[in-house]
Amino acid sequence: MRTGVWLVGARGSVATTSIVGALALRAGLTGPTGCVTELPGVNSPALPGFADLVFGGHDVAVTPIAKRAEALADAGVLPARLVAALPEELSAVERELRPAPTAGTQADRAAALVRDLTAFRQRHELARVVVVNVAATEPAPRPHPGHADADALRAALAGPDEVLPPSSLYAYAAVAADCPYVDFTPSTGLRLPALTALADRHGVPYAGHDGKTGETLLKSVLAPMFAMRHLTVRSWSGLNLLGGGDGATLADPDANAAKVRSKQRVLGETLGYLPQGDTRIGYVEELGDFKTAWDLITFAGFLGTGMRLEFTWHGCDSALAAPLVLDLARLTAAAHAAGRTGPLTDLAFFFKDPLGTATHSLADQWTRLCAFAGSLDAGDTDATRG
Amino acid sequence: MRTGVWLVGARGSVATTSIVGALALRAGLTGPTGCVTELPGVNSPALPGFADLVFGGHDVAVTPIAKRAEALADAGVLPARLVAALPEELSAVERELRPAPTAGTQADRAAALVRDLTAFRQRHELARVVVVNVAATEPAPRPHPGHADADALRAALAGPDEVLPPSSLYAYAAVAADCPYVDFTPSTGLRLPALTALADRHGVPYAGHDGKTGETLLKSVLAPMFAMRHLTVRSWSGLNLLGGGDGATLADPDANAAKVRSKQRVLGETLGYLPQGDTRIGYVEELGDFKTAWDLITFAGFLGTGMRLEFTWHGCDSALAAPLVLDLARLTAAAHAAGRTGPLTDLAFFFKDPLGTATHSLADQWTRLCAFAGSLDAGDTDATRG
Amino acid sequence: MRTGVWLVGARGSVATTSIVGALALRAGLTGPTGCVTELPGVNSPALPGFADLVFGGHDVAVTPIAKRAEALADAGVLPARLVAALPEELSAVERELRPAPTAGTQADRAAALVRDLTAFRQRHELARVVVVNVAATEPAPRPHPGHADADALRAALAGPDEVLPPSSLYAYAAVAADCPYVDFTPSTGLRLPALTALADRHGVPYAGHDGKTGETLLKSVLAPMFAMRHLTVRSWSGLNLLGGGDGATLADPDANAAKVRSKQRVLGETLGYLPQGDTRIGYVEELGDFKTAWDLITFAGFLGTGMRLEFTWHGCDSALAAPLVLDLARLTAAAHAAGRTGPLTDLAFFFKDPLGTATHSLADQWTRLCAFAGSLDAGDTDATRG
Amino acid sequence: MRTGVWLVGARGSVATTSIVGALALRAGLTGPTGCVTELPGVNSPALPGFADLVFGGHDVAVTPIAKRAEALADAGVLPARLVAALPEELSAVERELRPAPTAGTQADRAAALVRDLTAFRQRHELARVVVVNVAATEPAPRPHPGHADADALRAALAGPDEVLPPSSLYAYAAVAADCPYVDFTPSTGLRLPALTALADRHGVPYAGHDGKTGETLLKSVLAPMFAMRHLTVRSWSGLNLLGGGDGATLADPDANAAKVRSKQRVLGETLGYLPQGDTRIGYVEELGDFKTAWDLITFAGFLGTGMRLEFTWHGCDSALAAPLVLDLARLTAAAHAAGRTGPLTDLAFFFKDPLGTATHSLADQWTRLCAFAGSLDAGDTDATRG
Repeated sequence: MRTGVWLVGARGSVATTSIVGALALRAGLTGPTGCVTELPGVNSPALPGFADLVFGGHDVAVTPIAKRAEALADAGVLPARLVAALPEELSAVERELRPAPTAGTQADRAAALVRDLTAFRQRHELARVVVVNVAATEPAPRPHPGHADADALRAALAGPDEVLPPSSLYAYAAVAADCPYVDFTPSTGLRLPALTALADRHGVPYAGHDGKTGETLLKSVLAPMFAMRHLTVRSWSGLNLLGGGDGATLADPDANAAKVRSKQRVLGETLGYLPQGDTRIGYVEELGDFKTAWDLITFAGFLGTGMRLEFTWHGCDSALAAPLVLDLARLTAAAHAAGRTGPLTDLAFFFKDPLGTATHSLADQWTRLCAFAGSLDAGDTDATRG
Repeated sequence: MRTGVWLVGARGSVATTSIVGALALRAGLTGPTGCVTELPGVNSPALPGFADLVFGGHDVAVTPIAKRAEALADAGVLPARLVAALPEELSAVERELRPAPTAGTQADRAAALVRDLTAFRQRHELARVVVVNVAATEPAPRPHPGHADADALRAALAGPDEVLPPSSLYAYAAVAADCPYVDFTPSTGLRLPALTALADRHGVPYAGHDGKTGETLLKSVLAPMFAMRHLTVRSWSGLNLLGGGDGATLADPDANAAKVRSKQRVLGETLGYLPQGDTRIGYVEELGDFKTAWDLITFAGFLGTGMRLEFTWHGCDSALAAPLVLDLARLTAAAHAAGRTGPLTDLAFFFKDPLGTATHSLADQWTRLCAFAGSLDAGDTDATRG
Repeated sequence: MRTGVWLVGARGSVATTSIVGALALRAGLTGPTGCVTELPGVNSPALPGFADLVFGGHDVAVTPIAKRAEALADAGVLPARLVAALPEELSAVERELRPAPTAGTQADRAAALVRDLTAFRQRHELARVVVVNVAATEPAPRPHPGHADADALRAALAGPDEVLPPSSLYAYAAVAADCPYVDFTPSTGLRLPALTALADRHGVPYAGHDGKTGETLLKSVLAPMFAMRHLTVRSWSGLNLLGGGDGATLADPDANAAKVRSKQRVLGETLGYLPQGDTRIGYVEELGDFKTAWDLITFAGFLGTGMRLEFTWHGCDSALAAPLVLDLARLTAAAHAAGRTGPLTDLAFFFKDPLGTATHSLADQWTRLCAFAGSLDAGDTDATRG
Repeated sequence: MRTGVWLVGARGSVATTSIVGALALRAGLTGPTGCVTELPGVNSPALPGFADLVFGGHDVAVTPIAKRAEALADAGVLPARLVAALPEELSAVERELRPAPTAGTQADRAAALVRDLTAFRQRHELARVVVVNVAATEPAPRPHPGHADADALRAALAGPDEVLPPSSLYAYAAVAADCPYVDFTPSTGLRLPALTALADRHGVPYAGHDGKTGETLLKSVLAPMFAMRHLTVRSWSGLNLLGGGDGATLADPDANAAKVRSKQRVLGETLGYLPQGDTRIGYVEELGDFKTAWDLITFAGFLGTGMRLEFTWHGCDSALAAPLVLDLARLTAAAHAAGRTGPLTDLAFFFKDPLGTATHSLADQWTRLCAFAGSLDAGDTDATRG
């Protein structure tokens, strides 16, 4: 079951790390550390293997992916020996990367995207192509009447306005090309009524939003801990310092707001009340692809005694995100093969701001993920579908 | 269903906090923060209410409990207004505290303990008395042939030797008096074949060991997080700094060893491998009843990228332990009422070093705890038993 | 040498702690921990003793100071036993507190302030009155032509406009009443050309700005450490979380900006370059009078190797500031007695944003402070002056 | 003024980093970050330039230094590009490295060491050779009568006993070869009465002990900060986690004890009292050449209010130590050239456990260092000496 993985933002750090990692796994040069789909309970014959994945993608940037990989190796994100061992494989991926279309109306550009996706699927005789958005975070879009209705949207796209933000135009094209769609960022993506209606019409599954790779991952185990122990969280404050491309983007307060909002959701929904404090994001160029998050939690125990927990997380965002991108591509492809459509709320395990009313407790999300993976029977696939 | 709670180490910080808290709850002066048995999913009509609990206990110390409570208020562990509001209630408890017997053979002393327990039960017309060990941690005991067999033990106790460590002599007396037994410390307690055989013979349930109040609580959510994300924990090192009575005891390397061992168990059993590093305990008198634990976890993500998590936990051990003592007394009493016997492995949620092969994941322990609490039907009680 | 200490913001946490502390010192109930002027090298017979200090002040709030002291005791800032031991002394201070005048033009209000100061000095037969601003931080004021010139200022104050921000109106009145003036906050205070000209005309010494009580104190030893070791500081980022009155004020981004600016000055001036990163201030009401500051410093060593230092400071601002307020009152009074006028740049040790081109290295500031204190000869005082 | 730098432990991480760094500086491939002697105030024409330094040394290990450098590059301690750029320079150093002599009595071995040093000096026509001990930390030696007296020592060395620990045998040989000696480790080195007497007889200067590269560096600015602010340090506890060669050595409790002792000295001597708490050292292999130190300081402010400071230092020991090794070689060489003899107490800036009764305040040490460097007049050298 050869499966395409089409990355929006294909020359970025997360995409490059995903691609190098998948190629290295296929070549037997590394192990699957960080890949949830390789764990017992989630792994399943229904999932495409790493060797079945074929990569392509769009990007506004033009730096060759091999150069990006070398830069990531210099920064300590990728082992230099892996990059050095995969020159031909990276060249093969390079040939599948396309510039983001910029000419014409949004309808024209969407059509170009659909052509790229369709050609990719045909060229490689792929069972399907999963589109994954790993592009930099966008600011919240301006409202437009076309966001509410699929037909109004189609009409508006043919006009001169920028109706959809870029992430949503990609989501639109993915759906139009019958591709499952995963939003790994906090950008709008498919989160517009017109687009989810369209996805339903095309019968494609989709997942999102915003990969859970650091501070929120910790929140999704620590907040349930306080809840299960009946301890009152009085305040939860944090500072995320990050460099790299995403850091620069998030220095824009509008984009920042989207990310901060999705980070706070887990607390309110897990604890049943919102503690004081908030989460801040700061750009520190020198940190590069690494991120440092510091959180201070003050809480009350028995008889009101005040206590506190502090943590510092020094993570490499790309190294944390990349295996999840591969996991999501595999799981969403298998869901598509199994005939699933609509929001894949059982994939909440992967997201800061999950679709649906899913729990925010990582343990509960794990239970749902295992059940979901178990329900994807390898036999019950495309044949049935066709 | 009036229920006795007999505390071994009844004048210590944990016991004093438990008693003041229960009295304050009964008087409506405070809320049940930190009490797990008051949470939906665990709370049940089968549990005795806080107002049903009657306290007594043994201690080698003689400081009046009201004085201890005032000292804890000065140290910021208890609110001074609560202590000031409960003088008569504390006097009533004071009358139920007994000195630890010191004269005669261990058999003589055990008999004295049994008499104290039985008299307490009769004097207050209690349905049952749960014995909870909250005394300071002991060093590991010297092996003795009597530890292996109940009859050999009985014979040995009548001789001049100190056959059992103090915690085990209390456990022996509890069982002999048909009392359920909870070990909240890492001391030996009931963990000798002779004693568990005796507990089975008397048909009493028991729970333990070593209340999970700080660093290990965090381990029991963080270690599963790393496991669920397929991240490799390379090292996990920690330093626990604590003052107070337990701190001084743990400065003794032998007692320390017992505690450190129970702290490491969670990692090996959750991760399936033992990371490098270990946990150290240091005594810093000036920290008083507060404890500071610092942990450094280094881990590898995708393609081996090195990352790290640090946390600092500033907790008040008594304030964390006391509500759990009340929880365990309530749950164990209800289990006894429902006819349960033997090790209560479903109470692993509360312990660093739980009985049985229970999971160390807090979330899984929670699921088992909820199922256990749900199975204790208030109707199915002493009547049936009698 | 009886010396008045007139506190602007006299019912705030810092003022209350300063007053209770000085009264307790005078009564022999506590020691001078935190008082720099009691250290060898700084202590001098030229300084007024704690028992010579007489307190008064203005405030817009009306809560009795004894109530404020009790609230601070409840919050763990002051020992309850000290507050309980000083009821009469606190009543005596209460009688010297005046409401902030609010009627009439700014000239009218300034005249009322001068009357209060003069009456206080005469009533208690004080050698002098040092005015210390410990009121909440103000936003930066709107520019006004009167700020540039003393005579233009006098004319403008008689008009209907709010020409001066409150801190500067107090500074104006202090100078007009021939009182030395200390600005313990980052507010404008005396920092207007018209006001410093006026201070020179009246021959009063003054000191400021912004008491150095936490994160900046650490910066003033850590930044020189990096400089002396020739290590390159690549980034220095921080988050200050604080509750209490000042926290709420600083939630106002304008006031915040003033504080953040003074916090960053030490880095640029000590290192000779400005590292990446910045300092943020967040308001978390629940932290009360305590403050938590977290800083991350990334730096490069030999051959560019990247390293990092993190610190967390959990301080009680009032307990850190109050002894410095007493120190500054004593030192400024002695300087006035010795005939010093103008900016006391040798007091940089105490300030985040010191007057003059003083060094930011705490060690160098200490050397200057000791020399300054040594130069204040007790014999060379008012007599000479008069 | 060509100057030899003879490293004891020449194939270790610190030595290799020192050598690669000096070669890279000479080649203009890197800057002098971390080199204190390049700072204004310390730099002086009296110091030999980096290009004047010629390296040699002894080691029990045999791994080629180029291999060690590559391993350090893989571990992120050295930039790979520097190592790759210096193959011939490293080969030249390799030719100057000698195996540690192992045959014969200690007198025989000392004679072999002296021959190596003398031949090195003559072969390269060096003005002098500074011997620097950067070998792994030793346990404390067994007392021996020969330690007390130079003549008794000479006699004892000719016998079959291991009279001196290895570090002291090297120190003995250095002195006997008229070489200035620097002890960068906490080992015994020259710290025996017989050896210092011998150094005086030979008129060589010497410096030590134990390079100050991390936690103690911080202590030497933070402890004075608390002292200057008259804050009472109640406890100071720390945990040092380190991998690498030195980590494994320090896992030996005896060697550990020496290091811990020198770490604590700074507190007692700076504060005038010893706070509670101690410093622990733990070996975590996976940390490699990086070291993480966590310290918790609890302190009291005005009126006894409790506060706390925590810091975490993530340093690369080799990258911190290497430039100081070069600094010490330059300064000690210049001191020798200027005719200085005996203990160089003015170099306390560099050491955890400095010779003499020097202050432990980094700022005061800096002042003394600058005065010392200024006193080394380049004109007043060997000529005068000869």
